[in-house]
Amino acid sequence: ASRLRLPGLCFLLQILNILLFAVFARYSPQSSPGRCPPQLDCSRRNQDPGFQQRRFGDVHVQVLLSFGLLVAFLSRYGPGSVAISILLVAFAIQWAVLAQGFFNFFLNGKIYVGAQSMVSADFCTAAVLISTGAVLGRINPVQMLLLALLEVTVYTLNEYILLGLMGVSDSGRSLTVHTFGAYFGLMVSRVLYQPHKDKRKREEQQDRGHQADVFAVLGTIYLWIFWPSFTSATTVHDNAENWAVLNTYFSLAASTVATFILSPVLYEESTPRMVQIQDATLAGMAVMGMAGEMLVTPFGALIAGLLAGLISPLGFRFFTPVLRSRLKIQDTCGVHNIHGLPGILGALLGTLLTLLATADTYGDRLELVFPLMAQGSRTVTDQAFIQLGALPLTLLLAALGGCLTGEL
Amino acid sequence: ASRLRLPGLCFLLQILNILLFAVFARYSPQSSPGRCPPQLDCSRRNQDPGFQQRRFGDVHVQVLLSFGLLVAFLSRYGPGSVAISILLVAFAIQWAVLAQGFFNFFLNGKIYVGAQSMVSADFCTAAVLISTGAVLGRINPVQMLLLALLEVTVYTLNEYILLGLMGVSDSGRSLTVHTFGAYFGLMVSRVLYQPHKDKRKREEQQDRGHQADVFAVLGTIYLWIFWPSFTSATTVHDNAENWAVLNTYFSLAASTVATFILSPVLYEESTPRMVQIQDATLAGMAVMGMAGEMLVTPFGALIAGLLAGLISPLGFRFFTPVLRSRLKIQDTCGVHNIHGLPGILGALLGTLLTLLATADTYGDRLELVFPLMAQGSRTVTDQAFIQLGALPLTLLLAALGGCLTGEL
Amino acid sequence: ASRLRLPGLCFLLQILNILLFAVFARYSPQSSPGRCPPQLDCSRRNQDPGFQQRRFGDVHVQVLLSFGLLVAFLSRYGPGSVAISILLVAFAIQWAVLAQGFFNFFLNGKIYVGAQSMVSADFCTAAVLISTGAVLGRINPVQMLLLALLEVTVYTLNEYILLGLMGVSDSGRSLTVHTFGAYFGLMVSRVLYQPHKDKRKREEQQDRGHQADVFAVLGTIYLWIFWPSFTSATTVHDNAENWAVLNTYFSLAASTVATFILSPVLYEESTPRMVQIQDATLAGMAVMGMAGEMLVTPFGALIAGLLAGLISPLGFRFFTPVLRSRLKIQDTCGVHNIHGLPGILGALLGTLLTLLATADTYGDRLELVFPLMAQGSRTVTDQAFIQLGALPLTLLLAALGGCLTGEL
Repeated sequence: ASRLRLPGLCFLLQILNILLFAVFARYSPQSSPGRCPPQLDCSRRNQDPGFQQRRFGDVHVQVLLSFGLLVAFLSRYGPGSVAISILLVAFAIQWAVLAQGFFNFFLNGKIYVGAQSMVSADFCTAAVLISTGAVLGRINPVQMLLLALLEVTVYTLNEYILLGLMGVSDSGRSLTVHTFGAYFGLMVSRVLYQPHKDKRKREEQQDRGHQADVFAVLGTIYLWIFWPSFTSATTVHDNAENWAVLNTYFSLAASTVATFILSPVLYEESTPRMVQIQDATLAGMAVMGMAGEMLVTPFGALIAGLLAGLISPLGFRFFTPVLRSRLKIQDTCGVHNIHGLPGILGALLGTLLTLLATADTYGDRLELVFPLMAQGSRTVTDQAFIQLGALPLTLLLAALGGCLTGEL
Repeated sequence: ASRLRLPGLCFLLQILNILLFAVFARYSPQSSPGRCPPQLDCSRRNQDPGFQQRRFGDVHVQVLLSFGLLVAFLSRYGPGSVAISILLVAFAIQWAVLAQGFFNFFLNGKIYVGAQSMVSADFCTAAVLISTGAVLGRINPVQMLLLALLEVTVYTLNEYILLGLMGVSDSGRSLTVHTFGAYFGLMVSRVLYQPHKDKRKREEQQDRGHQADVFAVLGTIYLWIFWPSFTSATTVHDNAENWAVLNTYFSLAASTVATFILSPVLYEESTPRMVQIQDATLAGMAVMGMAGEMLVTPFGALIAGLLAGLISPLGFRFFTPVLRSRLKIQDTCGVHNIHGLPGILGALLGTLLTLLATADTYGDRLELVFPLMAQGSRTVTDQAFIQLGALPLTLLLAALGGCLTGEL
Repeated sequence: ASRLRLPGLCFLLQILNILLFAVFARYSPQSSPGRCPPQLDCSRRNQDPGFQQRRFGDVHVQVLLSFGLLVAFLSRYGPGSVAISILLVAFAIQWAVLAQGFFNFFLNGKIYVGAQSMVSADFCTAAVLISTGAVLGRINPVQMLLLALLEVTVYTLNEYILLGLMGVSDSGRSLTVHTFGAYFGLMVSRVLYQPHKDKRKREEQQDRGHQADVFAVLGTIYLWIFWPSFTSATTVHDNAENWAVLNTYFSLAASTVATFILSPVLYEESTPRMVQIQDATLAGMAVMGMAGEMLVTPFGALIAGLLAGLISPLGFRFFTPVLRSRLKIQDTCGVHNIHGLPGILGALLGTLLTLLATADTYGDRLELVFPLMAQGSRTVTDQAFIQLGALPLTLLLAALGGCLTGEL
């Protein structure tokens, strides 16, 4: 009987998704100019000749994003748990299209599905995968599906408040994906604290050393290749795009070097293991999430990447044991060091850079990065205050959502 | 002496290819506007500013397509047989450029080679790889090369009849690649029936369990990332493109969930193995081949994907044993369940959707998907009848070609 | 103490890079039209609507290039040495942006960093990775970092002389990357000759047979998929682009078939091992580096690829033992056969094709491939002489640089 609980839940959720899609979801008229209802402002977008093509490119990379994370986690999870992760991706994408559709693409009782909604759904799936990294090996697949169901909902609420209502600039999702996902998972882990399971899991990992290395190599290469495009996936403006990509590359390079500086000092090995290099790569990306399109000089990206690359191994060495023994939070894949701390660092850096933003240094880019400031409806200090305020709000929502999910 | 048969055949075929290329193949004038002969209608294409760039993108993904299949098959083949598969790809691409060139790009005694011919050659190579999946482990490399030589020829004939003469709409190649490749391979397997070889092969596979999982994980991720672009590679129209991509993603998500619903019911395991998830991913793609650009609502793609994801494991459980014991058809990689059945399902779905196609629901898209209907030279019923008639025709040609190849 | 030498050097170099970036590097005004200083000719580029987007695409593939090589080398290196390779990439990219910036993008005391400088830095990193392939397993990480530091400098000098001063057409970098990288590494290997280390390394490799195969499969597929785009990454002209891609594909197909022709003759195995197929793939690419955009008929690419695919295994069988015993040059990964010889072959082929280039056969493309010839300031013979002269110059600089590096 217990063997059939997962198939039963999958069946129910999939039928529910199909019914909701049948009732609410329609393809965005943006894809077919002939059928644009007058309520949606299609004219502006269709006039832009390159817009359609960029949207397609976004769809092209959309599944890349969450699967990038999947690849990255493989070195810690092993293929056994990948099956469940793929199920989570397949379910969370559908559910996120619906949930985000009700907030952002709802019109006349219909959700209009297009390339943009797929990209948003995918960022949401990435947050779910980060959270599962904290509790992996301690909850069963049925619990994972329920976690995805709830986290997608809370994520959508948080994203709507931050980006829609408050006007926070967070193109690479330092806050909404990395920080939210990490602390949501940590709170679930706290509520489900089981002292003995963690140790067994760790022993299993030791056995998988060789295979983990192979996956870590592949994951690191994959992230270097594709991630810089993700950081700029939501910046649709051609001119601002370039800088986010370049900044992310420089941040990656610096955080990788940082691992080689710190690992031999902290551990007894002369060169870091591949998993550590992959962690530094992820940290170097998380820190560039918000600040990527705000940095106006390359050496800033180098410094930020260096800091992120130093914070992540320090967190593993000194912070994870404290988390486990004092706060009773188990963190299977160390998401706090890879996503949580660099995400917070990125948000603080973004706030600082917002304070320094002037029309002089940004030029035409100001309108693209901070549209409300460029219009004059917000001062620099207001915007910086709002960027800073988004951090505790995200932490609060993530903690509340994690508690709620853990209790269920 | 027998050791030198493969090198000898490779050498002969390569020299033959070089000679045929030297005599017939020239680069398409489309690539260099200055040298366009008046007989080819270059003007229309060169006026379109984005056309050149899209063509380049098509070339970029062209080899992706067949190698995607290769990656997907790795989990069942193992690296040992990959060397032969790569040889097949290298030879079939050259031969397909020539064979298809004589049918589609022939002018004044020259074949004009361009991005489009590379994309077509690649779809053809994919069909060859699907067919070899049915007979793998039972025929030697020399026989494989001869199989590729003959299948490319018959494939080109079938494609020319379906797309060129009959005007069938099959952008994602449910019929010409998936169904044709599967049944061609199955007929070759029937003619070459050897009762004992199959068992030994299976035992070898058991030993490779761990490595197969690693490849299955990589193959699944690869397919999720790149396949949706393939489905729309031949729809050059910007507006129709988006829907094919979105439909394929939704179909993928639903067929993946379907595996989790059915596998625990059919087998004793609580979660499906990675190979089964990969099979479902492939089935979810095959079913969207023809219908991808015809579906006008997302929930249709979810239902089609769910059906394909359910059919594939049912076929493995109940249909493959019947094939082997009654019809004496061995199917090493189960191509009948992964490509054959979902391909037929996709063709039937495409016929149904053609019947439902009206100018009202399609809008401007009608001209792109069904140009003959939009021009008024064909009624909806005629087009649906032709789409349906293409299915038995493809099966017939595949069976005849497979018999012929097996006898040689 | 010796354990801390690598972290210390990393720290010093990273701080140096950050300081140099802080003083010199600024983002290219090309990325933000509003801030273009009058000295730089931004107007022409901004008028071209598709230019910005192509640049972005270039950035997208930039890290692909060197990581492609990394993937390719994995089958010979094993994951143990990958960590060091990634450190080399992370450091060499930063250093190459600086070094090349002083030669090519220097204005008013500032280096303007943009997509183009990232692409150049990446080609440079590829040359460094090729060189390390010759000495792998015989020098320690600290020596590798110093090698990267010096090679980037000499590479930049060579590239500036060839492309900037002499006007050599080498879009796919047969000379500047493949030939330079191979002979630089071989000279370092000659100076550091250690008779005993090589044997031990080889025994280690035998143990890693299975895993090497997995990586070789992945590397081969990766190269097929992405490399043809690299060859055309620096040809920014839409019309010339297509032919370089198509020529590279045809060359790849022919060189792969060549491996199947020659390997069974040279060795006792009936089918070649995956590593040999990967080597042929790399050789087929190196030979197309310079000639890729010059070939005007597809069968030329087939012949060139076939020759490269034959030369590479012959080199491994007959030339590598001679190198080791007579010239005392150890070549761990056989870079001489994979990059050196095919690169020289490609340069000679490019010279021959330059001699045959006429305005009649090239049409509008002449201006794109040989701008100086199209303007009439250079005759065909002059250009061919210069293309040929670039080969000994590259060999000389590579040998001198390698000697210098080996001595330090």
